[in-house]
Amino acid sequence: NFITQITHRISFTFSIGYRHQQTTAKRVEEVEFDGPCMKTEVPGPRSKILAQQLEAIQSVVQVNFFCDYEESKGNYLVDVDGNRMLDVYTQIASIPIGGYSILYDPELFLGTFVNRPALGMMPPEQFSEKLVNGLMAVAPKGFSRVQTMACGSCSNENAYKAIFIWYRVRGQQFLSLVFSFFFQVPGCPDLTLLSFMGGFHGRTLGCLATTHTKAIQKLDVPSFDWPIAPFPQLRYPLGQFERENAQEEARCLEEVEDLIVKWNQKGRHVAGVVIEPIQAEGGDNHASFDFYRKLRGITKKHGCAFLVDEVQTGGGSTGKFWAHEHWGLDDPADIVSFSKKMLTGGYYQKNSFQPDKPFRIFNTWLGDHTKNLLLTEVIKVIKTENLLDQAKRSGKVILEGLYNLQDKYPHLLSRARGIGTFCAIDVKDEDTRNNLILKARNKGVVLGGCGTQSIRFRPALVFTEHHAHLFLDIFNDAIAELK
Amino acid sequence: NFITQITHRISFTFSIGYRHQQTTAKRVEEVEFDGPCMKTEVPGPRSKILAQQLEAIQSVVQVNFFCDYEESKGNYLVDVDGNRMLDVYTQIASIPIGGYSILYDPELFLGTFVNRPALGMMPPEQFSEKLVNGLMAVAPKGFSRVQTMACGSCSNENAYKAIFIWYRVRGQQFLSLVFSFFFQVPGCPDLTLLSFMGGFHGRTLGCLATTHTKAIQKLDVPSFDWPIAPFPQLRYPLGQFERENAQEEARCLEEVEDLIVKWNQKGRHVAGVVIEPIQAEGGDNHASFDFYRKLRGITKKHGCAFLVDEVQTGGGSTGKFWAHEHWGLDDPADIVSFSKKMLTGGYYQKNSFQPDKPFRIFNTWLGDHTKNLLLTEVIKVIKTENLLDQAKRSGKVILEGLYNLQDKYPHLLSRARGIGTFCAIDVKDEDTRNNLILKARNKGVVLGGCGTQSIRFRPALVFTEHHAHLFLDIFNDAIAELK
Repeated sequence: NFITQITHRISFTFSIGYRHQQTTAKRVEEVEFDGPCMKTEVPGPRSKILAQQLEAIQSVVQVNFFCDYEESKGNYLVDVDGNRMLDVYTQIASIPIGGYSILYDPELFLGTFVNRPALGMMPPEQFSEKLVNGLMAVAPKGFSRVQTMACGSCSNENAYKAIFIWYRVRGQQFLSLVFSFFFQVPGCPDLTLLSFMGGFHGRTLGCLATTHTKAIQKLDVPSFDWPIAPFPQLRYPLGQFERENAQEEARCLEEVEDLIVKWNQKGRHVAGVVIEPIQAEGGDNHASFDFYRKLRGITKKHGCAFLVDEVQTGGGSTGKFWAHEHWGLDDPADIVSFSKKMLTGGYYQKNSFQPDKPFRIFNTWLGDHTKNLLLTEVIKVIKTENLLDQAKRSGKVILEGLYNLQDKYPHLLSRARGIGTFCAIDVKDEDTRNNLILKARNKGVVLGGCGTQSIRFRPALVFTEHHAHLFLDIFNDAIAELK
Repeated sequence: NFITQITHRISFTFSIGYRHQQTTAKRVEEVEFDGPCMKTEVPGPRSKILAQQLEAIQSVVQVNFFCDYEESKGNYLVDVDGNRMLDVYTQIASIPIGGYSILYDPELFLGTFVNRPALGMMPPEQFSEKLVNGLMAVAPKGFSRVQTMACGSCSNENAYKAIFIWYRVRGQQFLSLVFSFFFQVPGCPDLTLLSFMGGFHGRTLGCLATTHTKAIQKLDVPSFDWPIAPFPQLRYPLGQFERENAQEEARCLEEVEDLIVKWNQKGRHVAGVVIEPIQAEGGDNHASFDFYRKLRGITKKHGCAFLVDEVQTGGGSTGKFWAHEHWGLDDPADIVSFSKKMLTGGYYQKNSFQPDKPFRIFNTWLGDHTKNLLLTEVIKVIKTENLLDQAKRSGKVILEGLYNLQDKYPHLLSRARGIGTFCAIDVKDEDTRNNLILKARNKGVVLGGCGTQSIRFRPALVFTEHHAHLFLDIFNDAIAELK
């Protein structure tokens, strides 16, 4: 049947190079389960024991349950109590194509894994080639340069630095090196980045200054005083409320322009604007493609860099490899940052954002080359298996299913929305949302929340229409129990 | 002979679990070369071609040469032109035990590599166990908790946050969540961290505010205005200049205390003090163990957290697993951060630094569990092979050799210093230093600079007395050519 066909093909692709032919053959057959299978409440007794053990070393307040990754495969996550769950959260949207036990040739990356190079100083021979066949093979239109980093926060931190350096090099640069030691103008200028309410760009101190999702994430941490613009609060489905949504977007764009002018006037120049194509952590807030096109125009008009943060949206789940490619711009952005599904962090940049001198953007590892190696294989599979089309097809089933559910339970559900499989729905309040996530989990579906009362759906790229129907059936059962 | 004995034994330890017995047997014999072997100038023609290719995608201004990591082994790095060099820089001090082609059992981590878990939410079954046998097995005295992160900067950024949160939770906490959205007091308080001139703690925006090594690293990037104390400028060997060094340290400690009092008085409280046991990037600047003991006392007196950054010093090269263990404190620090040789980033913390609420210290991956798996194996080898003792023995040979060289070339070399193999020497000026590094490289020894005119020596833990003599001979030849 088609259910497991695609995952079978993927496994096969990956297992060609694998040396243990016997093992491979066995695993290919096992690669996809036929549905969830629950044995205990989640977390089960084994997860609870492990949490107690971990508690001695670390905080476990965020731990949902412990997983058996050896047993997990295809679209299914198996926990340590043997519960097999359909995974619609994928490690906070960070698993690229799914298929937990997909086989790779260990020879591909074992040496690089043990001998981790300082990529900026002593890169391995195949470094360029792997970048060309990996990150550059899926570069957004208009980008010919990429800088790798370790994670999403690190990618944005360095993208911010690239923007500040670009802004100064381009304009008036004072090479006041001595001043920069002491945080003083002109060495360390009082430049700013404009971000949006509801935006999430990471948790390190620079990133955190542009993150405005949950206040607890920022509490007690010193921050930069930088401008924050309102993000459009739209009505869904977007197409049904075009006129009022356009008004709301116009209001926000006007505010963006006002802020840039105001901050520039007071000498705290806005060097760049950072935005997500869909505000994910902040509640899956969408804006129209037209909004983003106009925002791009405003940044150009005022000489600000335009940074698109695709850490959560990139990698194909919207049906295009990059969510911002839906906007239809010739000149989409100055920098596009990524991580999660891309396995390596990093950012694409226009040539002019390359610093003029060495060691301005640098660290020991500059990413991890094993992730580049794995990404090259992942991208091959995405292309060979047309997984972007799969995301479009599965996404259509999910979104239609969510529309039906909100029609059926209007007192509980609202604002179903999505592009590709990157979908979400609102629940009437936070407690009910959290309760619904737990109920779904105990029925064998792993989900994640976002914003104050939304549920985000983040299936892997191998999530087929079959899995979408399976998920909708179980989700419907969980909702029915809420009443 | 003893030259290759230790590397042989290590390879054997690692290869036990490896499935390909034939391959193993072959590689064990090959595991150590008998010396450098140079075929071209470095970078050679192949490195230059590869740099041209990479230039199309990335800046290559920092690239020294391209490596063939498949051919590199033991203490030797082989470049793409077939030049075999003794590695005394080890990927900016980030290779733990050396042995570039040491074999690991790929089954150990292959599954975890492909299925990278969100460790804070859905950790794998063996997570606690691997932490206990890995990071906790080498925890500094007094620490029972550890938080993993991806890299050194990320570790310090989160350690800084933990300090700010601790400072506020312990004292007066205003749960002014709304304010924290807008960077305002009291939500985002105007707390500070005290750092030292010449200190290096990373390059992301929070870390960069405490980094004061090279001005170009900070230029054009907005920063926090936080207090900076002078770091003692000592004369070497420390033991020969005890009285004047003690005076210089007393001056710096007085300034530290003055700064804390002054900044507290103006309402910009100093929540913590961050320092390296040896300022590495800043020029291998040492202070006496007594200086650090007194500094610890000052932080306690004024209620500041004491953060020891062991990103470069940790992992055994000083002859103890953590450099700050040389100080002989009962209560060495509140937080100890690490990365590089530890393979994973992260920090040890006292219980009180564990945030009171979830998602205050968090990100998607919270490190990379494959690094924990590898570290567990690395630590086993360090213990079984007594590699800390090896570092002491090799370090003694290196330092005595450096003393001899500076006696022989007093117009060129000075200030030889070190603990274990973590050694350095000053060259008369920056140009001569850079020239000497290139000459040594072309003779088959890879070195790195630090500070304005120092060379840092960062051999791997499998660097024996034999390698130390080999290095000193070649280094001597390179110096002789300078005259």
